[in-house]
Amino acid sequence: MLELDRNSINSDEARDLERVGYALANAAGEAILPYFRGSDLDTVSKEIERYDPVTNADRAAERAMRNVLTTLRPQDGVLGEEFGTLASESGLTWVLDPIDGTRGFVSGTPTWGTLIALSDEQGPFFGIIDQPYIKERFVGGLGQAFASGPLGQRALNTAQNHSLSNATLFTTFPEVGSRQDFLGFRAVAEKVKLVRYGMDCYAYALLAAGQIDLVIEAGLSAYDIQAPIAVIEAAGGVVTDWRGESAHHGGQCVAAANDALLNEVLPLLKPFSEPAK
Amino acid sequence: MLELDRNSINSDEARDLERVGYALANAAGEAILPYFRGSDLDTVSKEIERYDPVTNADRAAERAMRNVLTTLRPQDGVLGEEFGTLASESGLTWVLDPIDGTRGFVSGTPTWGTLIALSDEQGPFFGIIDQPYIKERFVGGLGQAFASGPLGQRALNTAQNHSLSNATLFTTFPEVGSRQDFLGFRAVAEKVKLVRYGMDCYAYALLAAGQIDLVIEAGLSAYDIQAPIAVIEAAGGVVTDWRGESAHHGGQCVAAANDALLNEVLPLLKPFSEPAK
Repeated sequence: MLELDRNSINSDEARDLERVGYALANAAGEAILPYFRGSDLDTVSKEIERYDPVTNADRAAERAMRNVLTTLRPQDGVLGEEFGTLASESGLTWVLDPIDGTRGFVSGTPTWGTLIALSDEQGPFFGIIDQPYIKERFVGGLGQAFASGPLGQRALNTAQNHSLSNATLFTTFPEVGSRQDFLGFRAVAEKVKLVRYGMDCYAYALLAAGQIDLVIEAGLSAYDIQAPIAVIEAAGGVVTDWRGESAHHGGQCVAAANDALLNEVLPLLKPFSEPAK
Repeated sequence: MLELDRNSINSDEARDLERVGYALANAAGEAILPYFRGSDLDTVSKEIERYDPVTNADRAAERAMRNVLTTLRPQDGVLGEEFGTLASESGLTWVLDPIDGTRGFVSGTPTWGTLIALSDEQGPFFGIIDQPYIKERFVGGLGQAFASGPLGQRALNTAQNHSLSNATLFTTFPEVGSRQDFLGFRAVAEKVKLVRYGMDCYAYALLAAGQIDLVIEAGLSAYDIQAPIAVIEAAGGVVTDWRGESAHHGGQCVAAANDALLNEVLPLLKPFSEPAK
């Protein structure tokens, strides 16, 4: 029981786990695409005060992924956005967000993604950010860091820019989160070259690909950030919370292309950081 | 001289003009894609105060499109973002933005586009919004209104939602433009269901496709808005300036899925509208 962690996995097991990851991404994409920009999309809001849609596409995709795991990895745990937690008997847990960026999805934008992470007790060590409409996949961990898509397969390497004044920063909503979250974000945004919005998990993929330098968000759940952590770390970047501690439980998160940039940003964020989870 | 306008074009000529539009989009895509997420991308800022990048990809794509027109339509005028105006001898003018959303392009996002419009003295009557990385094309005018892409070819029809409180609104930057522009945008944003950012011309394509209800921007140039006008009008939507007048010169623009929504929005925008161009 609970005998597996990242250090106990040999290379054959690693390739098997990768293939399970791809099977999960494929199953999710097949479940989601018939609903994307389709007339069968039903949207309900999970919250009354704030528009937080969940679709039948979210639920169909998470069910499809859980079915894959029941067949291929019944001993592993599951943490999913829509259907909760299944305890791990192996030590490994699959952390699943069927559609990250549901508000973008229901608007038809192509920058939502399926997030798949594999975690042990220390956090995620393998992740996939999958965009099935574009047929783009960003993979990191278990000795891999690559993207495949319309331009073919390419290695993922984060940017070498060490200068905050030359950095490009992404977040999804300009309000970011609470007033405190907003002020922390603005403290960094005022010092960078370019700020852009609206990309959801796609921003983390762009950071892993060396296209942008920083992503700062707040109010995240574990399933929002674990796949980005694995992909970005495999590509040479770093993800922490706003205090510089582990981000794999979610909350306020900062992803940076390199340690030098992170070290410039953390002193600006810390005054607005929330207590440890 | 100047004998052509939209009403003098027969159906054979219309098909020829469509083919010229596709040749322009193909030429631009071929010129741009080698630079997208590539190491050969050089970026210079057109403005000192504000980061407004233009790339060698912009210039290469506009040159490629102008070469197509020199061969196929030497009698037509050209208005392009990078290389200015060529007077029309036919009455028709091609209005070209090689990369709309250059800030998104240099960040690696897949939501920039090549904008191609064909105009007569009354404004644009045929347009293409082309996203060559995704291989998506949105076409409207000359009797057509369709999108082609990863989901195949589909008719474009704007949404039938007439309720502002149920509407999805897009703009590119949360600051929108001047303080006055920002206040006009906020007057509408406070009344809608969902506001999203960061899509550049892709937002107009989503509106034509019936995915979203409103796009509100300011500070646009003619080449930013003429292709969206043609595509959206062909799909059943409407584009005006904030006073409800013709938007084809740019400035403050609002695109709506239908007249009922436009009529709800214009009274909110008019107090913040700029004088006629």
